[in-house]
Amino acid sequence: MSGAGITPFLEGSRRWMRIRNEYAREALAELLGTGIVTLFAVAGGIQHFANPSDDSMQPIFGSLFGLMAAILIVGGSSGGHVNPAVTLGLCIAGNCSWIKLPLFWVAQILGAYIGAGLALANYAWMPLKVGVSMNVFFPAAVVAPVPGTPIGSGFLDQIIGTSILVMLIIACCDKRNMQVPKALIGFFICLTICGLAMCFGINAGAVLNPARDFGARLMGLSVGFRSNQIMTVNGTHWWLVGFFGPLIGGALGSVLYVTLIGAHLNDEDEDS
Amino acid sequence: MSGAGITPFLEGSRRWMRIRNEYAREALAELLGTGIVTLFAVAGGIQHFANPSDDSMQPIFGSLFGLMAAILIVGGSSGGHVNPAVTLGLCIAGNCSWIKLPLFWVAQILGAYIGAGLALANYAWMPLKVGVSMNVFFPAAVVAPVPGTPIGSGFLDQIIGTSILVMLIIACCDKRNMQVPKALIGFFICLTICGLAMCFGINAGAVLNPARDFGARLMGLSVGFRSNQIMTVNGTHWWLVGFFGPLIGGALGSVLYVTLIGAHLNDEDEDS
Amino acid sequence: MSGAGITPFLEGSRRWMRIRNEYAREALAELLGTGIVTLFAVAGGIQHFANPSDDSMQPIFGSLFGLMAAILIVGGSSGGHVNPAVTLGLCIAGNCSWIKLPLFWVAQILGAYIGAGLALANYAWMPLKVGVSMNVFFPAAVVAPVPGTPIGSGFLDQIIGTSILVMLIIACCDKRNMQVPKALIGFFICLTICGLAMCFGINAGAVLNPARDFGARLMGLSVGFRSNQIMTVNGTHWWLVGFFGPLIGGALGSVLYVTLIGAHLNDEDEDS
Amino acid sequence: MSGAGITPFLEGSRRWMRIRNEYAREALAELLGTGIVTLFAVAGGIQHFANPSDDSMQPIFGSLFGLMAAILIVGGSSGGHVNPAVTLGLCIAGNCSWIKLPLFWVAQILGAYIGAGLALANYAWMPLKVGVSMNVFFPAAVVAPVPGTPIGSGFLDQIIGTSILVMLIIACCDKRNMQVPKALIGFFICLTICGLAMCFGINAGAVLNPARDFGARLMGLSVGFRSNQIMTVNGTHWWLVGFFGPLIGGALGSVLYVTLIGAHLNDEDEDS
Repeated sequence: MSGAGITPFLEGSRRWMRIRNEYAREALAELLGTGIVTLFAVAGGIQHFANPSDDSMQPIFGSLFGLMAAILIVGGSSGGHVNPAVTLGLCIAGNCSWIKLPLFWVAQILGAYIGAGLALANYAWMPLKVGVSMNVFFPAAVVAPVPGTPIGSGFLDQIIGTSILVMLIIACCDKRNMQVPKALIGFFICLTICGLAMCFGINAGAVLNPARDFGARLMGLSVGFRSNQIMTVNGTHWWLVGFFGPLIGGALGSVLYVTLIGAHLNDEDEDS
Repeated sequence: MSGAGITPFLEGSRRWMRIRNEYAREALAELLGTGIVTLFAVAGGIQHFANPSDDSMQPIFGSLFGLMAAILIVGGSSGGHVNPAVTLGLCIAGNCSWIKLPLFWVAQILGAYIGAGLALANYAWMPLKVGVSMNVFFPAAVVAPVPGTPIGSGFLDQIIGTSILVMLIIACCDKRNMQVPKALIGFFICLTICGLAMCFGINAGAVLNPARDFGARLMGLSVGFRSNQIMTVNGTHWWLVGFFGPLIGGALGSVLYVTLIGAHLNDEDEDS
Repeated sequence: MSGAGITPFLEGSRRWMRIRNEYAREALAELLGTGIVTLFAVAGGIQHFANPSDDSMQPIFGSLFGLMAAILIVGGSSGGHVNPAVTLGLCIAGNCSWIKLPLFWVAQILGAYIGAGLALANYAWMPLKVGVSMNVFFPAAVVAPVPGTPIGSGFLDQIIGTSILVMLIIACCDKRNMQVPKALIGFFICLTICGLAMCFGINAGAVLNPARDFGARLMGLSVGFRSNQIMTVNGTHWWLVGFFGPLIGGALGSVLYVTLIGAHLNDEDEDS
Repeated sequence: MSGAGITPFLEGSRRWMRIRNEYAREALAELLGTGIVTLFAVAGGIQHFANPSDDSMQPIFGSLFGLMAAILIVGGSSGGHVNPAVTLGLCIAGNCSWIKLPLFWVAQILGAYIGAGLALANYAWMPLKVGVSMNVFFPAAVVAPVPGTPIGSGFLDQIIGTSILVMLIIACCDKRNMQVPKALIGFFICLTICGLAMCFGINAGAVLNPARDFGARLMGLSVGFRSNQIMTVNGTHWWLVGFFGPLIGGALGSVLYVTLIGAHLNDEDEDS
């Protein structure tokens, strides 16, 4: 930890195996980052389910400290979107080129799929021992409305939350705004989503990330859940909320930030 | 997130629609920022009401992480006061020109009104489904004294809390003090109000923000509450506590900081 | 908040009333800072007592976010010790001149006395309304051992905790160590004491601050407690633990840091 | 705290007793740092055991704020690994020379042994007074699986957690990544392990540190536990999980970071 950071194994690896293609390198980073995000989120949901006396904030802080770690690990490569809605918002604002969008989306969903599988593997023994079916505990890790929530409120909730998230991210990247150092962006994103989950967690579980939600559902299907267990709630297609809600919110947040704040900021040298 | 921040859509928007009038631009930012603050605060109060087993700190952290996000989003434009008492304190200390004060106050209250409405819309389904009247859950989001609190203790509480908040904010902006980077001010404000809510939350609910409190009450009246439900408690006009308490505290905090600390600090080059 | 920090009222106050005597200016800052610390701590103890369903971490985070605010408010003047044990440790290490020590101690205890009084005033209505005697709730705010704790364990606990605290503070001020910016020191102190309170809170309540403990006890005597209620527990003089334990720990921490770490660090230019 | 940091006692100590041997100086720092880490962790476990109504997050935040303090105190000397698995990972990546590894491991385990003993001394009165045998409360401070966890799941859990931890640490030290200032690394490590403990705490207690686990067990044997109480659970050698699991994870995390992210990052001057 003392100094260096530029090291033999690292330097050797750079000479022998460095991926020089920007798209491949960044897609790999998004895959890893979204995998870590989903690993924490699904494991945190399961741990919380298994300990009903846990603090209500524990799965929130737990999974989002994991998100912060993921952004710090992969951010230097791809920027650390780790969320298709963030990628969409950044493409609209112009912080990311559109050509990367489909690539990142695929990498993010694939990473989430793998991360969810690893979390399930880690706790695979539990339903057998505790005598609880996976049917009960796995859905806790995906968009899970409080019974009776209308699907429209689920969409509204995801749109509000993701638009604020994307406004925050673009603001943190906007050099004319509060000059947030790169190292702190992940931490501020973490706290903002914690806040959203604590205030907007009822309608749709505050997932705010189509890859983490859809990837986990796909893994659920792969390990034997039926579609009516993992994709729908009482016949309503709640996976649509988890997938399209954040995308709409991400696009909206990007437009809101640019039109309400970003377009009007002074440059450093015009600062009054 | 990687680099730029200066982008096509953003740059295009700057050329076409940039608001060059400082007052209009900053009022818009205060409206948006206070809207986000109130959105989180009201939604957090409702979510906490709906889940009585929630941690007692959840609505506190939840709503104030939202405040941090709001300051990071709009701070580069207006400074991110998002609170009329803060604007008053900064005008007294001289960090903000008096001409902006009425403008910011109107923008802040209007923003809070809209934010509270959006939070209500998000959870509009709940009272119908859960069978609880809005009468019960909405007041949880405004100044809500523990039964039996004398109104004088409510005022004292708001004055103490807001004066400490404003002292902190002016200290963070004072270049002769602890050299707080812009990017961290919102985070420190967030933690300070969390502390106030955890220690001074009983008498008057630790709102400390006239716009967030009064705007939410106005929205309550608009959606059909009667004045005796939303403005008063047992006939006592508690909205006065939420409105004037923080303003008095903000003015006091500004005077206290300047006279006890700010006036006496050494300049960098006289530092012993 | 936007820019300046150097302002008309502030500048005017500097010309008219600036205290140029370093000792007077810094003692005033220590008085204010320790007052804020004790205000939060006593109020937090009372609020927690009044809401038994509060999170166990609420009074800890609450009072220590207040400590962070206090350091940010007064730190630019006096350094923000706000604790006689910290002043002692810094004098030993050489970061503070011995001549300031008695002055700071008096200011800190006086500040704590005022702060505790203000917290009591804020909640003065409560025992009357709730029907609980002050005898019960005030002691929650001072060193309060779990029944059966031997006084020796109380001393050991305060010595361990304060020595770690003072090691951290001197490390943060040591330019040869981790290069902590001034703006972050208060935050790191806050988290460290949170950690101590969460791990070493049983034996003696994790006060770790002779001024905050003794000042609050003096205020208790002033408002009518008898000595056997507020200074002793079952006849044992627990105020000695709160007063001398941290001082011993502060001195020890200073010596430990210097001899184990500080003396051996490389200068920047010898860094290997 | 005001300024200096270079002080008489400190400077005097440097002249008289400075340890110029890099290995001795750094081993001393690792001993002290791992001692502090284990002191907090064991004390936090005991405090939590003694207060069953504590928040579930209290021992997690408590012990890991202590880890942050330890890194800030000793980081300038040894880098603040305070964990053999981290040392192993950094040696593989090349951030630490292999010659230090056995030295650090011994210092870390010895520090943990002493720290655990001090925590036990602090709470030595408790079992006697409360009437609970040490058999019950001490094991709460070491790797403690939920009943029924297969040992394979314990290993998987430690490997996942430590590999993410080591990826984070190497990323924070990698100058081509998110440019994390030295002062913040300990804080980010703290939050990341908090996240791991909140999401991966069931299978094996989220210790993730062979020295803190094995050193505490050794102290347990020294104070009179029998091997079947402190080293095994129902005859299964769980100490192996706490010792080898993190080492495997640390090595894996180092390789994963270098091959998936570190090898492919652009240098500053090639940044697109």
